Amino acid sequence: MPRLAIRTGSKVEFQDITPRVQELVTLSGVKSGVCCIFVPHTTAAVTVNEHADPSVVRDVAQRLDYLVPQRGDYCHLEGNAPAHIKASLVGSSETLLIDGGRLLLGTWQGIFFCEFDGPRSRTVLIKIMPDRPGDKPLS
Amino acid sequence: MPRLAIRTGSKVEFQDITPRVQELVTLSGVKSGVCCIFVPHTTAAVTVNEHADPSVVRDVAQRLDYLVPQRGDYCHLEGNAPAHIKASLVGSSETLLIDGGRLLLGTWQGIFFCEFDGPRSRTVLIKIMPDRPGDKPLS
Amino acid sequence: MPRLAIRTGSKVEFQDITPRVQELVTLSGVKSGVCCIFVPHTTAAVTVNEHADPSVVRDVAQRLDYLVPQRGDYCHLEGNAPAHIKASLVGSSETLLIDGGRLLLGTWQGIFFCEFDGPRSRTVLIKIMPDRPGDKPLS
Repeated sequence: MPRLAIRTGSKVEFQDITPRVQELVTLSGVKSGVCCIFVPHTTAAVTVNEHADPSVVRDVAQRLDYLVPQRGDYCHLEGNAPAHIKASLVGSSETLLIDGGRLLLGTWQGIFFCEFDGPRSRTVLIKIMPDRPGDKPLS
Repeated sequence: MPRLAIRTGSKVEFQDITPRVQELVTLSGVKSGVCCIFVPHTTAAVTVNEHADPSVVRDVAQRLDYLVPQRGDYCHLEGNAPAHIKASLVGSSETLLIDGGRLLLGTWQGIFFCEFDGPRSRTVLIKIMPDRPGDKPLS
Repeated sequence: MPRLAIRTGSKVEFQDITPRVQELVTLSGVKSGVCCIFVPHTTAAVTVNEHADPSVVRDVAQRLDYLVPQRGDYCHLEGNAPAHIKASLVGSSETLLIDGGRLLLGTWQGIFFCEFDGPRSRTVLIKIMPDRPGDKPLS
């Protein structure tokens, strides 16, 4: 099972992992299928958004901070309740499509690992599922 | 790779694409598997919600407008930062199940393309993955 | 098509379905692949979050109540507009990975059925897709 090791450097951080995921797709030899991305953490998530202008994901992160503020009347006592809530709002899995050996992303789209309780060492799991019998699955 | 061409007519619009996705499932000949829907845009999304009463998705759209208002202190200078933020909240992919050649949707469920920065010409990518060797993948 | 029957006991409730989903994976005999979870309801959802401390999902539920309050200026007249809106924010599908016959979840992660308009009888659909030709699909 391919996985990406990720090191985040701040409390909240959106890290562009697009080239690393594409590299795994290329290595897999799968030409047509889907690429499932799964974040095995409860205070992080994965999203697809614009990666041409870095201010876009800064806006996403800041609006999430506003909607789920760090200080609040939370039950969970470890101080990271907002990170857990953001994880459920953004989601821990994303399914991308593969065609011609390439991730099918729009012109401006990139895949972002979303750190909500860093800095930490994190992992992202990648599953590449071929739809053609001839292709070999990467696992 | 099957895709839907979509034309949206206003800034924010939830367009019911259920019959069009089902048509592609039928054309594919796949009886059992999954149907992955992917939106290759950074200011649009896909969601599943009630399509019997159109006021439901109007409420979803209006609450998103309230949570992520058009005017705000955003970094991204193109004026569509809220559309990007909504895209990450709703999500750019959805995985549906297929059985007996039909999308497995609940009684009230429909699939909606969510426009957050229209009007525009848009595309939705559809990947139909069979789980039975005999079924042919549509790609 | 395997499905889980769920009985919720209150208006809003996050029910941990991890052991039940793992049981279906085990029964399927699939060693490597993906497990797609789909909620065929428009006022419920599925999410992955911490299940070690039950206060985490209580915080998620309470923040959603705050962001989408029960009383508000909604168009949908059945009184459950907030439940529909929460369903689109959290999402009706989640794709998990399987390796060695086990769901690949992080140490603290569990799968939660999210009830937003209970108490009700609900269903969760599970699709287990093998990536190896030798594995048999469960359907």
